[in-house]
Amino acid sequence: MKNKTLFKFFALMLLLSGLPLLSHASEMVNSGLAPAISDDQHYNRAIHIMAMLLVGFGFLMVFVRKYGRSALTATFLLVSISIPVYMLINSNTVGIHENDVRRLILSEFCGASLLIAAGAVLGRLKMQQYLLLGLLFVPCYMLNEWLVLNGGLGLVKAGGVVDTGGSIVIHAFGAIFGLGVALTMTTKQEFEKTIESDSVSDRYSMLGSMILWIFWPSFCAALVTPEQMPATVVNVILALCGSTITTYIVSVSLRKKVSIADIANAALAGGVAIGSACADATHSEAVVIGILAGALSTFGFAVIQSRQQKWMKLIDTCGVTNLHGLPGLMGGIAALPIVRGLDIRQQLLGIVVTIGVAFVSGMAVGKILPLMGRKTEAYEDAEEFLDAVE
Amino acid sequence: MKNKTLFKFFALMLLLSGLPLLSHASEMVNSGLAPAISDDQHYNRAIHIMAMLLVGFGFLMVFVRKYGRSALTATFLLVSISIPVYMLINSNTVGIHENDVRRLILSEFCGASLLIAAGAVLGRLKMQQYLLLGLLFVPCYMLNEWLVLNGGLGLVKAGGVVDTGGSIVIHAFGAIFGLGVALTMTTKQEFEKTIESDSVSDRYSMLGSMILWIFWPSFCAALVTPEQMPATVVNVILALCGSTITTYIVSVSLRKKVSIADIANAALAGGVAIGSACADATHSEAVVIGILAGALSTFGFAVIQSRQQKWMKLIDTCGVTNLHGLPGLMGGIAALPIVRGLDIRQQLLGIVVTIGVAFVSGMAVGKILPLMGRKTEAYEDAEEFLDAVE
Amino acid sequence: MKNKTLFKFFALMLLLSGLPLLSHASEMVNSGLAPAISDDQHYNRAIHIMAMLLVGFGFLMVFVRKYGRSALTATFLLVSISIPVYMLINSNTVGIHENDVRRLILSEFCGASLLIAAGAVLGRLKMQQYLLLGLLFVPCYMLNEWLVLNGGLGLVKAGGVVDTGGSIVIHAFGAIFGLGVALTMTTKQEFEKTIESDSVSDRYSMLGSMILWIFWPSFCAALVTPEQMPATVVNVILALCGSTITTYIVSVSLRKKVSIADIANAALAGGVAIGSACADATHSEAVVIGILAGALSTFGFAVIQSRQQKWMKLIDTCGVTNLHGLPGLMGGIAALPIVRGLDIRQQLLGIVVTIGVAFVSGMAVGKILPLMGRKTEAYEDAEEFLDAVE
Repeated sequence: MKNKTLFKFFALMLLLSGLPLLSHASEMVNSGLAPAISDDQHYNRAIHIMAMLLVGFGFLMVFVRKYGRSALTATFLLVSISIPVYMLINSNTVGIHENDVRRLILSEFCGASLLIAAGAVLGRLKMQQYLLLGLLFVPCYMLNEWLVLNGGLGLVKAGGVVDTGGSIVIHAFGAIFGLGVALTMTTKQEFEKTIESDSVSDRYSMLGSMILWIFWPSFCAALVTPEQMPATVVNVILALCGSTITTYIVSVSLRKKVSIADIANAALAGGVAIGSACADATHSEAVVIGILAGALSTFGFAVIQSRQQKWMKLIDTCGVTNLHGLPGLMGGIAALPIVRGLDIRQQLLGIVVTIGVAFVSGMAVGKILPLMGRKTEAYEDAEEFLDAVE
Repeated sequence: MKNKTLFKFFALMLLLSGLPLLSHASEMVNSGLAPAISDDQHYNRAIHIMAMLLVGFGFLMVFVRKYGRSALTATFLLVSISIPVYMLINSNTVGIHENDVRRLILSEFCGASLLIAAGAVLGRLKMQQYLLLGLLFVPCYMLNEWLVLNGGLGLVKAGGVVDTGGSIVIHAFGAIFGLGVALTMTTKQEFEKTIESDSVSDRYSMLGSMILWIFWPSFCAALVTPEQMPATVVNVILALCGSTITTYIVSVSLRKKVSIADIANAALAGGVAIGSACADATHSEAVVIGILAGALSTFGFAVIQSRQQKWMKLIDTCGVTNLHGLPGLMGGIAALPIVRGLDIRQQLLGIVVTIGVAFVSGMAVGKILPLMGRKTEAYEDAEEFLDAVE
Repeated sequence: MKNKTLFKFFALMLLLSGLPLLSHASEMVNSGLAPAISDDQHYNRAIHIMAMLLVGFGFLMVFVRKYGRSALTATFLLVSISIPVYMLINSNTVGIHENDVRRLILSEFCGASLLIAAGAVLGRLKMQQYLLLGLLFVPCYMLNEWLVLNGGLGLVKAGGVVDTGGSIVIHAFGAIFGLGVALTMTTKQEFEKTIESDSVSDRYSMLGSMILWIFWPSFCAALVTPEQMPATVVNVILALCGSTITTYIVSVSLRKKVSIADIANAALAGGVAIGSACADATHSEAVVIGILAGALSTFGFAVIQSRQQKWMKLIDTCGVTNLHGLPGLMGGIAALPIVRGLDIRQQLLGIVVTIGVAFVSGMAVGKILPLMGRKTEAYEDAEEFLDAVE
């Protein structure tokens, strides 16, 4: 690899590229009073997020080659159960004064977190178990949201945690919840069964990845003020650019050849990690966060994942630990040096509470799900779908 | 299936989930005078609808495994013929005062209806016949639009029919027109040829389905006022959630295993059926309409379709009867109890006129199309495409 | 082909369809002072363009059947390198006063042009060479942008060239740059290796094509004033409709059967060619431009491409000459009769400068890239990707 120096040059160049931009981004945010964001702006972002939930998460999970019909049907069911249930509970607690489109976006955030959790056990649940998973997940997610963001029980001060794009309460929560479920449920046979992909499933998976990449700025900027929007969306895109290039470089460096699964997944880690500080970071900070997150996530897929299986005795089908778990936590922590006036204790407390609630409730749900039986053939459509020919 | 009770529990839970929301949705609609919707809002919805027409309808029809190139090319041609022809006729009748982007949306509605009609005879027309179908369809569609919505001939009072999202004039019209064409054209050989799908075509089909699902709120809310928008889009999403979950439950119940074709199609029935009343229903009514439409549509695919072939002596390739025909009519009728101040006679008259115009004109077009010859190998690209290797 | 007369009838009908619309479109543009386009409008279009870059260009290039993983990874890398580098240089030259979202759109335009250039040598670069290509392309593109649009060196008067949707500086520039690279780099072995596609890669390619078609109006209207927007987007759609139908007709006429590659590519030529005059043309002019561009592009794919290989001794993998090169130049020239008050000398000068800068810099980059070595197996993933099984 005589091109290694060139790689390093690219990486450095990219890193430096952000520096001159450093000065002006922060001026644009938090500048005075925020005019209300219109319903129509909220609406367009809500649709973008829906594209992420269905085509994005859905097709990303199609990488399991014989489980495509199931992954897509499960995605449909998880979205369709979480949105009405979240909206129902929210309207009965927060009240009907909440704006309808804003409530929709909050429910989509919950759906995203659920899809992440489901990714950890993908291919090993029956269809109806995905529905039950969704029903049980939503209240747990809302409990954590209430504790960490809305001052529930007085544990964490309302507004004390900065998590604009959901690194902590959406990504890390979903991943850790999913790990909890997987920890309780993974069977011995499942360790022996390899998860296969092929050229068709790989390309479907890249479609899902690209849809997530494209609309990620709308996810992070869904609820920011119009003043914060420009800097926020550019930050998200720069972080994604950083993680995408870094993923390629680290994947080749660690494995000799590129793994398309690394590209499809770890390229998105910049979006996960910029979440907490997306409205506050400068553009160069965003690039740096993206680069670090891409490296961390690729290292996770290439090195940690196989060891995690042995250490934790669980299989994380989609590697949500590496895409959402670690980069999510990193994003929550990255806010500490970046966000001016952030109460460090509150932010750390929010992270700790999220880890606790997610892990305990995930474990509990992992005990409940097997009461509905177990899928006999992991990672295969044929058990549950008619005419599931190749 | 010891999980049947669990299914019922889910269904009931989902049904009830809407009830507490019942009170406040209707307050949001029709509240005073409507500010003009901006060109930019119209524009964003026009693009969303275009995504539905091309990727949505196009890929949904790729389920026929050897006919993918043809289905996508036909989609391109049907959209490209219907939009300019509609805009031309509209600008010469309604006049140039109509806003350009609004006219675009109206022409896209026509394109959607045409794609539905084409779905009934998919795989059995030559490429140039799709073009001719488009040319002949547009004036018929516009005649019905004029009669039912704009007071043409004084048959139905202008504004007397409530059909915001087009359950009647778009979905039912397209499906019945397509049935008319299929009724006249289906040949004996076509009854013997099975329509094959495989794991690749199934996943493409699910992509189309998801794109339709995602952007459906923009279809129904394309022309509503900004005040009506929030409640409308949430209604559409809730109806889709209801039909998606119900489709899964009914598909498993009727067939023992899930049919991915049921999921890809009937999951959308909630969007079809909520069309007429989408701006007027409460959220719980929307959930109920979605559940009923999903059940009706899945029953159609699982039970009615094979009998319809014998009774009506026609093949409906995509099952548009079950996705657009029956749920569309159901949507038009569902408006009766839901929309306050609706003139029941006018609404029923609108439905009857639509059925009549669609069926008669569809039959006539079915007589004209074979004048251009017949496709010899149904459901196969190879006859018309170069190098159409597997 | 007794249907030929019918084809001609369609073509004529389509052509005439625009005429009655002729009068009123131009009233809508340039009408008095332009209110500032909002950040949110810019933002929505920026996301649409991002969908074109990743899923649009990315999947269009998946037509090479064994090179799908590589084409998609290369797309990710090209976008991720060009956007930050463009933004960095732009913010250090134009200054930080440029609006963040507007700057993002300008950088996406650069990314589009880069993807076009890369299409000419697709399958014959190593992954790291795509990165280097991106690094070298951006300054060349920006040099041309500065010379042709911003009055750099006083060569062309600032504002003297009309190129709203980038026919000249985006499409033609990218295509000619790519040809320059291909001219220098194409090896003998590459002439012997056929570029294979199959039914799966063809359908992926059509997905890319449709995504480009759908969002093309946002590309052309990204920076126009709100007054110009309605006429502009309708013009783009009419041009695309014209080129799509014409592509089908010309493809069948020249080849006896339809080539799906013609459909996936040449159908978009209307969007390329309407670029320069999209905000100024009448609707009927847009239809005519679309029809001519579709015919030119299809003729290019069916007739010119194989001869170009021999004459120019280069392989243009994606046929960017025929989709972006010729229709781009045609679009720049089509502005001459259409745009009122256009300085013909300036417009032609802009075209000539673009051709010169693109070709010379492309040739230079084609000399530099091989310094990083050469891909041994053209058009195949396996050399660079792990487990690249079929």
